[in-house]
Amino acid sequence: MKMIEGGVVAAKGFKANGIHCGIRKNRTKRDLALIVSDVRAAAAAVYTTNKVYGAPITVTRENIADGYAQAMICNSGNANTCNANGIEIAEGMCALVEKAAGIAAKDVIVASTGVIGQPMTIDPIAAGIDELVAGLGDHHNEAAEAIMTTDTIQKEVAVEFTLGNATCRIGGMAKGSGMIHPNMATTLIFLTTDVAITPAMLQKALSADVEDSFNMVSVDGDTSTNDTCSIMANGQAGNALIDAENADYAAFCEALAVVTQKLSRMLAGDGEGATRLLTCKVTGGADVKNAKIIAKAVICSSLVKAAFFGADANWGRILCAIGYSGAEVDVHGVDVAFSSAKGEILVCKDGAGVDFSEEIAKEILLEKEIDILVTLHDGDAAATAWGCDLTYEYVKINGDYRT
Amino acid sequence: MKMIEGGVVAAKGFKANGIHCGIRKNRTKRDLALIVSDVRAAAAAVYTTNKVYGAPITVTRENIADGYAQAMICNSGNANTCNANGIEIAEGMCALVEKAAGIAAKDVIVASTGVIGQPMTIDPIAAGIDELVAGLGDHHNEAAEAIMTTDTIQKEVAVEFTLGNATCRIGGMAKGSGMIHPNMATTLIFLTTDVAITPAMLQKALSADVEDSFNMVSVDGDTSTNDTCSIMANGQAGNALIDAENADYAAFCEALAVVTQKLSRMLAGDGEGATRLLTCKVTGGADVKNAKIIAKAVICSSLVKAAFFGADANWGRILCAIGYSGAEVDVHGVDVAFSSAKGEILVCKDGAGVDFSEEIAKEILLEKEIDILVTLHDGDAAATAWGCDLTYEYVKINGDYRT
Repeated sequence: MKMIEGGVVAAKGFKANGIHCGIRKNRTKRDLALIVSDVRAAAAAVYTTNKVYGAPITVTRENIADGYAQAMICNSGNANTCNANGIEIAEGMCALVEKAAGIAAKDVIVASTGVIGQPMTIDPIAAGIDELVAGLGDHHNEAAEAIMTTDTIQKEVAVEFTLGNATCRIGGMAKGSGMIHPNMATTLIFLTTDVAITPAMLQKALSADVEDSFNMVSVDGDTSTNDTCSIMANGQAGNALIDAENADYAAFCEALAVVTQKLSRMLAGDGEGATRLLTCKVTGGADVKNAKIIAKAVICSSLVKAAFFGADANWGRILCAIGYSGAEVDVHGVDVAFSSAKGEILVCKDGAGVDFSEEIAKEILLEKEIDILVTLHDGDAAATAWGCDLTYEYVKINGDYRT
Repeated sequence: MKMIEGGVVAAKGFKANGIHCGIRKNRTKRDLALIVSDVRAAAAAVYTTNKVYGAPITVTRENIADGYAQAMICNSGNANTCNANGIEIAEGMCALVEKAAGIAAKDVIVASTGVIGQPMTIDPIAAGIDELVAGLGDHHNEAAEAIMTTDTIQKEVAVEFTLGNATCRIGGMAKGSGMIHPNMATTLIFLTTDVAITPAMLQKALSADVEDSFNMVSVDGDTSTNDTCSIMANGQAGNALIDAENADYAAFCEALAVVTQKLSRMLAGDGEGATRLLTCKVTGGADVKNAKIIAKAVICSSLVKAAFFGADANWGRILCAIGYSGAEVDVHGVDVAFSSAKGEILVCKDGAGVDFSEEIAKEILLEKEIDILVTLHDGDAAATAWGCDLTYEYVKINGDYRT
């Protein structure tokens, strides 16, 4: 397996584009993205568990109920959520794809991201659809930019791997910076692959994957109303169709995990206002469920996050988060260490502090990527969660997001 | 019932004091508090649900297992948690009270607050105990100051009410500013009353009370390791002993709720870095449990909190928090309004936005105390939760708390 360029058009038979159509007032920022497959593709998706969810989710759910799709359209600048005319707009976006690109409206995955509950009209999308379709090509960069909101970097990943004699690819793009605490998928992730796989196996692979990737990311504990992770698999790689949990399925899942975990790290590291990517690696857990609960509790704690902003080795807050996490854990058997490119330092052994050099700890914690290593003595299970520090900038961004 | 002065010495037969003994390096800040009752008192307490909890909690639990206590000692500057010698220090503090004040060590409630996992010795407390005891009197202010950490204001309340022909009082002091998301009691609250009540009824009243007061406060979602709310009732008011759920018990609970809810508001309003007290009042809930879940989810959302810092009427974030709260709720029947001394404004009706004046909303939201009014259409249950906004200052305080 190797990392390749190309994002959502890395896989054979996919084209993409992104334009500024006018939903955002800022004319320098693209706000409408489209991905199309040359042929109808197996499709799967996972969605937010929030009971308040966007109209695009209702429409997408319906459109891919048969297991197939051929295009993904997404706007930024308005979440199309808590609007009276939300369904009408989401269905309208699919109809525009049908009209301009000749792809059946019922084969379109639709998504929106931005402010919740703002009035929205379909007019700018209708005005821009021809330009969007006309420009379809290898414009994965433009598509990735068009789905960004408060994101500061584009998030694209692609891998190449083999199944039998066939060379296959999985590519993806993601957006998300705040309101990130997925409870199914996170924010918006669009994946494409040229692997031949049945819709049922594709959904199975995706549902299992997000439990260890996007669902282990948290920026601020807020589960968005619009989270959607979708994938299209168009079979253009020419591999033997994956229709069971065989060796090819396992290889596909492995490649998928490389893409989704890399995107997860990118989402966490680009958390609103973040200066540091925090990775909490729990080992020695009684079972995976408990290990995950602990990893996420550490990543979610406002106090832990603020301490890392200050590069402060305040490990007591990590013990505190483990204690209130609700996990089954022997708190007297918890070790904590911090690690980065500058080295590793043990700060807590068997639930109590150890003598350590604050100077060395500070040097390790001033790095951009920090691993929080939590070792339990309850069993063999492990889990990893990704988050970021809590900064002035997070408060600033969210104190006046609408203005 | 009327509000009176005097905090923890408002009730008959209680004395208090607070000194600087040297646990904190800052010599201008008191760090050791003592409250004593003239006679042995019925005692009750509730504690943090965090599995990592301070040694003082272990010792207090044991000391009041028989339902009685006569003194409360508390230090700030070190949480005495995750220390190898924690129990030794907590028991040592009780022994010092016995030695200096002649009150049995087994009748002492002990508490500590400050950094977790820092080395601690009993030496400064041993050196200061005689001065602390010698100064016992109506020094409730000094005691309230001595338990403060990042608190910016002292938190004291007292009420006077009658039971039969007896004039009774309940007074209290609290500390807490960060790591506030109680799951039993919050932070440290010391209550005193001269009401005659059995230990069993006292515990019953306290346990029920905290569910609607301190457990409905959240500053940052972090449940502390040392939360303790304790009460001593010394019977000096001369009322008929409360030993059942009679009318006097109800009157006592009512007075207790006035004290604890006022302290809850003070805790939330003095949240670390807070500029605004947020009160979320949920009405029309299916049941109290669901109403409480919703009120707390709104108060706990980082995005909601940051929006209020910016006085931004971003009601979509409130809908979002309700949606992911886990409560049983009809999201299409949710109304949201904001209210303050400057007036009230409806921003969301039946789960969708309504036209409202951003100017008027801004004026209302610039006040120091904001009510978030969430009206459901699921039933008759109500709940109230208290929180605060999320500010640069919170990040600053917690980015270098240890330094």
